[in-house]
Amino acid sequence: MPAHDDLIARLHAEFPASAGTESSDLDRAREDRSGHRAPDRPIAVVHPASIDEVQRLLRLANETRTPVVPRGAGTGLAGGAIGGAGAIVLDLSRMDRILELDPLDELAVVEPGVLNGDLNAAASEHGLWYAPDPASRAISSVGGNIATNAGGLLCAKYGVTREAVLGLAVVLADGRLVRTGRRTVKGVTGYDLTALMTGSEGTLGVIVEATVRLRPRPEGDPVTVAAAFADVEVAAAGCAAVTGARLRPAMLELVDDLGLRRVVGHLGPAAIAGTPVEQLAPGEALVIAQADDTDAASRAARIADVLRAAGGRVVVSSDAVASERLIALRRAWHPALAATGEVLIEDIAVPRSKLPDMFRAIADIGRRYGIEIPTLAHAGDGNLHPNFVFTGTEPPAEVWAAADELFRAAVALGGTLTGEHGVGILKRRWLRDELGDDGYDLQRRIKAVFDPAGILNPGVMFDEASAVRR
Amino acid sequence: MPAHDDLIARLHAEFPASAGTESSDLDRAREDRSGHRAPDRPIAVVHPASIDEVQRLLRLANETRTPVVPRGAGTGLAGGAIGGAGAIVLDLSRMDRILELDPLDELAVVEPGVLNGDLNAAASEHGLWYAPDPASRAISSVGGNIATNAGGLLCAKYGVTREAVLGLAVVLADGRLVRTGRRTVKGVTGYDLTALMTGSEGTLGVIVEATVRLRPRPEGDPVTVAAAFADVEVAAAGCAAVTGARLRPAMLELVDDLGLRRVVGHLGPAAIAGTPVEQLAPGEALVIAQADDTDAASRAARIADVLRAAGGRVVVSSDAVASERLIALRRAWHPALAATGEVLIEDIAVPRSKLPDMFRAIADIGRRYGIEIPTLAHAGDGNLHPNFVFTGTEPPAEVWAAADELFRAAVALGGTLTGEHGVGILKRRWLRDELGDDGYDLQRRIKAVFDPAGILNPGVMFDEASAVRR
Repeated sequence: MPAHDDLIARLHAEFPASAGTESSDLDRAREDRSGHRAPDRPIAVVHPASIDEVQRLLRLANETRTPVVPRGAGTGLAGGAIGGAGAIVLDLSRMDRILELDPLDELAVVEPGVLNGDLNAAASEHGLWYAPDPASRAISSVGGNIATNAGGLLCAKYGVTREAVLGLAVVLADGRLVRTGRRTVKGVTGYDLTALMTGSEGTLGVIVEATVRLRPRPEGDPVTVAAAFADVEVAAAGCAAVTGARLRPAMLELVDDLGLRRVVGHLGPAAIAGTPVEQLAPGEALVIAQADDTDAASRAARIADVLRAAGGRVVVSSDAVASERLIALRRAWHPALAATGEVLIEDIAVPRSKLPDMFRAIADIGRRYGIEIPTLAHAGDGNLHPNFVFTGTEPPAEVWAAADELFRAAVALGGTLTGEHGVGILKRRWLRDELGDDGYDLQRRIKAVFDPAGILNPGVMFDEASAVRR
Repeated sequence: MPAHDDLIARLHAEFPASAGTESSDLDRAREDRSGHRAPDRPIAVVHPASIDEVQRLLRLANETRTPVVPRGAGTGLAGGAIGGAGAIVLDLSRMDRILELDPLDELAVVEPGVLNGDLNAAASEHGLWYAPDPASRAISSVGGNIATNAGGLLCAKYGVTREAVLGLAVVLADGRLVRTGRRTVKGVTGYDLTALMTGSEGTLGVIVEATVRLRPRPEGDPVTVAAAFADVEVAAAGCAAVTGARLRPAMLELVDDLGLRRVVGHLGPAAIAGTPVEQLAPGEALVIAQADDTDAASRAARIADVLRAAGGRVVVSSDAVASERLIALRRAWHPALAATGEVLIEDIAVPRSKLPDMFRAIADIGRRYGIEIPTLAHAGDGNLHPNFVFTGTEPPAEVWAAADELFRAAVALGGTLTGEHGVGILKRRWLRDELGDDGYDLQRRIKAVFDPAGILNPGVMFDEASAVRR
């Protein structure tokens, strides 16, 4: 792209240690973990080391009207941080320091590139814990978690990322630095821009620092309960019974029959010995619950009683090793699927009470399209991950047609098209359907307040003509 | 005000059952619980019974460019819902139905005028609880709680109102109805307008319906721990030790010496017998902690150990009656102060670790102005309520001068000028100081997206020339 030669020269001159234009660098920034890959390379990838560098880059981008794609660890599942033709990727992974960890105020101040797992390792030395717990925590960054308002397995009890973010430093599209929120647990001065930025997927500003809330680590070992059920709807009813008994497990996962069969095949007989899936009947589904903290044992026993009464074949862990063995059935989900092809992970959420309806809708859609859609649910919060396994680099058209029906079914049940992964570029075409015209219009106008020239992650969330092609 | 005759006639014609212009109605709407009273009466008070009526009123107001002041139960402490000359007060207290209470999805859909206490009474029949717990819960409305992002005594463990709001129906300034958020626990489709509306004090739209999250009620009786300390700084250190031990009480309150003396005098010897303040030495301050749920007893015992080690004279409740007796020391706070004059309640928050510094600053400011500033703190989250007791209808000038110093001291300590009461009209002059120029400017521009003509609660939060005089 010779049109960008001047810009590339300026980037190298002004960011000699941070601007990269090597093919390998550009190619890495063209994709994330969604399986999607932009058709063209971005102009450059800039790896700033400081807030000042981010500000200078945004000033340059604003002056030249160059689209900027903020990017964390690149583990997103919705194509929200993919660089394409005409864009500069702003890769924040070098800004990975924990600037402060205050055990008395139970907070940390971090740069955006710090990995969730690294922050947790540091916090645990003080008996503290950063609760947002996406399955990707070992490889995803806190900044990316905030930009997508990441969820995870523990949200029904411990909340989503938004609940853990106290304040942010954000570089705006014109290079100005603003600080939102505060270091206090409470505070109602002005509009909650911290919450507005959380989950805004790099379209309103670049998160360059975050003040996050830590909480005491749950005490003792968690206790795990696994229960096999005759089918996925009976399993969903079992989960509903746990909620109805006002027991709030830290984790409540549901693995459907299509997925469970693959998990069992993937793990092999030795790994599943002693678990409820040791003798698996056709159509059976699995529920895995975990109770934590000082009352873990008594709470787990009550959860087991409820699941047993709902028809489950139940095993309760006796110690940390046994617990890990049961949890391994859940952890094997993604490897089991990935072993047989490329995986597209969807991310709908419905009110808990609609889980059986949603499972029925998924089965119906799968039948009509002749596609298996193995589905995993965070049943405690109604978040389902229907998975499509395919061969080749891009999902075939019928997968997208089936996904389209999934999204519409979820929204019709009072749900949402993305529970925790974000809209990105992959789901932007459904945004207006869920928000309605007036809601969509309000959101577009808020975007314009922060980014009047439209240079911040264009094409993410909003399906607009000016989008970077990706 | 003859200029408004046409408008009044139209209001009576279009809202025959809802528009009030009686002096008593207008006078009630001129004040809230802040002690402040607008110098003039508003034009009218409209008490709509439906969303449709709210929409019609906003259309009329938009057409005639008449300021609208949304108002819930009128229990605000910052003058955020006070009607003044030229304004229509939109009183939502008649819209007080619980539209739905879903025990499986653990949520309720309510009209804004329902009282917090009434919602909780209904939820408790299903073993559920609406956690936002402002001290005013018996008399304040859920809509008002959301408009101010109300806090309360239990926030360190259970979060503020924002964490409990899943979705809203909002009438915009031009009468359009938009729905934000959803019925699911998780959901990241688009910007979080639900959080943006929460705490926006009626300046962005009128909340006409809320979908709120309920949670399982803590099991069993809470256990209360009360401890007297030599002075307020030692007491604050005791609270810090509780946090440092990673014990998270449901409640952790600190009553300073000036307030405690009044409480003890107000309650009398019989009520305080058997409590740690039965023999009170000069300068002593009180800490009251409460542990709840299944591990209440063991957790309370550990909290008591920590407070004892920090120098406290400790009493632990043995049953619900004894617990109530200790909590009564906290509950008597406001009555004890109100018995001796008008009370202006301030509402700063600082990082927990700065509580001793803030108490020192309050004492210093009190000394310099020759004013007693009895202070109560939600020590678990660093939220302090310094109180001014005065005679007459408005706080004297030196009270405001002292309050000004309080706010500046809190912000200088990394805190905020309002932890849970809101900015309203009483604190708007300090908003820019806390937000900074760029942050203030962003907030003004967000306001303009929602309310381009500036008819929604003008003068609240932002100190603008067009404000309704109040």
